[in-house]
Amino acid sequence: MGEERSGNLGEFEFIRRLRQRELNRLHSRRNTPTPDTRHPAPILGIGDDAAVIRHRAGFDTVVTADLLVEGIDFELGTGGATARDVGHKALAVSLSDVAAMGARPTMCLLSVGVTRERWRARFLEEFYEGVGPLAERYGVSVVGGDLSRTPERVVVDSVVLGEVRKGRAVLRSGARAGDQIFVTGSLGGAAAGLRVLRERAAGPRLKRAGQGLVKRQLRPEPRVEWGRLLCEEKLATAMIDLSDGLSSDLAHLCRESGVGASVEAESLPLDPLLKSLSLTETESLSLALDGGEDFELLFTVAPRRASRVPAELGGVRVTRVGEVTDDPSRLTLVREGRARPLRPRGFEHFGDRRR
Amino acid sequence: MGEERSGNLGEFEFIRRLRQRELNRLHSRRNTPTPDTRHPAPILGIGDDAAVIRHRAGFDTVVTADLLVEGIDFELGTGGATARDVGHKALAVSLSDVAAMGARPTMCLLSVGVTRERWRARFLEEFYEGVGPLAERYGVSVVGGDLSRTPERVVVDSVVLGEVRKGRAVLRSGARAGDQIFVTGSLGGAAAGLRVLRERAAGPRLKRAGQGLVKRQLRPEPRVEWGRLLCEEKLATAMIDLSDGLSSDLAHLCRESGVGASVEAESLPLDPLLKSLSLTETESLSLALDGGEDFELLFTVAPRRASRVPAELGGVRVTRVGEVTDDPSRLTLVREGRARPLRPRGFEHFGDRRR
Repeated sequence: MGEERSGNLGEFEFIRRLRQRELNRLHSRRNTPTPDTRHPAPILGIGDDAAVIRHRAGFDTVVTADLLVEGIDFELGTGGATARDVGHKALAVSLSDVAAMGARPTMCLLSVGVTRERWRARFLEEFYEGVGPLAERYGVSVVGGDLSRTPERVVVDSVVLGEVRKGRAVLRSGARAGDQIFVTGSLGGAAAGLRVLRERAAGPRLKRAGQGLVKRQLRPEPRVEWGRLLCEEKLATAMIDLSDGLSSDLAHLCRESGVGASVEAESLPLDPLLKSLSLTETESLSLALDGGEDFELLFTVAPRRASRVPAELGGVRVTRVGEVTDDPSRLTLVREGRARPLRPRGFEHFGDRRR
Repeated sequence: MGEERSGNLGEFEFIRRLRQRELNRLHSRRNTPTPDTRHPAPILGIGDDAAVIRHRAGFDTVVTADLLVEGIDFELGTGGATARDVGHKALAVSLSDVAAMGARPTMCLLSVGVTRERWRARFLEEFYEGVGPLAERYGVSVVGGDLSRTPERVVVDSVVLGEVRKGRAVLRSGARAGDQIFVTGSLGGAAAGLRVLRERAAGPRLKRAGQGLVKRQLRPEPRVEWGRLLCEEKLATAMIDLSDGLSSDLAHLCRESGVGASVEAESLPLDPLLKSLSLTETESLSLALDGGEDFELLFTVAPRRASRVPAELGGVRVTRVGEVTDDPSRLTLVREGRARPLRPRGFEHFGDRRR
């Protein structure tokens, strides 16, 4: 119905309806018997000048923000993302940060800037259709945010709050020499998906395999369950999510922990879909090490506890990829028995790197 | 020194220094005897995938987000804002939201997108020079955020968290018929300042008076102390900050409370600087009612408690401007003894309104 479209509503009315939907959802959930771990932090107010949140005793709060800009962090339209993809990914990248702290995500605020044309074309409805299922899956409530007009580009700032048992958040700084390094899932798929998107015209043969990789780029899955398990079982000594690329993110972790690391090239869990792209071994390795946006978790485990790390969780495996060393900030890649320096070549907005 | 400039640093290094500065500041503050109400919520981590926050028992958290877009919400350069102004205002508008809940702001996350040119031109350093003094004044720590490149425009999403005694947040929904309506400070100055900025070429006679109004537009002062007092003394039954304009914001409050309101035109505290602009009475009234961005607080007080509202606090006065009525959502303006409907004509990004 026309009157349900944002293009024909003022923004206040749009926000009012969004909020009513969220309140209805919260209400119906409260009246449904669900595990009591699902919604411990009651949301007392949505749609006031600020949202009001009550915390559980014995828990700390974690909070993270991720800014995504059209033309830089994503493209819309042909060879790019849909509004739904953007909604999914904006929330996913922040959920991934919360997962990397070992925390349980509880709520989010989404600030979205859109052009008048996209507002009229129902961008926001579709954006929230991408947010909804992911938020629902992890029990996350949309409690606020902002809406602005932009002259040219869509921008989204996604803020996610989570909770973690008091003093138990997994930081980047806890890795010690001898700790074993693990990653969840597989690597290089998201960067390869970006390449497929950019070379869509390259050839129909790639189409099918390409689709899987494109999904890795546009619909990343945050490793929330893994993060919580690694925290609750006190397995991870340090953790970070792979957003910039393993080579950069491991460097961040090592810097914070005052340690070095040695990574075994042969052990890296390359995304199986990479095979379809007829890349050289070095190209695949580079995607896995420097590609970024896989949103897998990289974590370290004390050697005596390494055997307790389960092989997989909910269909997502983990792989041991190396070891922490005591040489501060020195990263090494071992390939075919030869060690060479592993340099951070992941994504940086203002570095002299790609994009 | 060149190496201190963001333009010559990678973003990781810039963020690392920013964080170090914040940690130093937090540390020095902890070792300084300050009233213990100032920093009750220790920040356990900055610069990890997410910030970690510990809450005080007996307090709720409030959280708000405000998105500001260059070319829509502010202009840069001649006839516009400096990077410092943008830093100040981005934080101020979110502090104002927290103030409107009666809460004490504690920390913020700032997500900023800038072009490569502005990055090189030290936009971010100056932006944070605008954030810093305001954050310091209210004891707010910068605990996170994000940094992205943008193709054309600066965008800022400002997220502020605050704390308020359990169950005591002042909502928009608590106004009852008979309550007296008050506003802090003065009205219309920010909108007049925007006009001055846009007509800078109009005439040098305006310059001096214009400067004061421009400051109201570019450097709004959040009414944090007023918000806290009204909450702690249980004076305000409902509250909202004046961001869109009194006519729109009062309508929001009335809608949430299921009430109407009558406003007396003669009682509205017009910004004294408006006099310098040789406006008609109707023009001044329109700026005060519909101009927006004054970031004053509008609040309602039960009649028997209205006399307890102090006349001023920290140099900022309050003025009684009208009364809540029991006619849901009907807003009336009384001017020279005649009542007429008061229509919401404040700012809306996607309405058919100005801008």
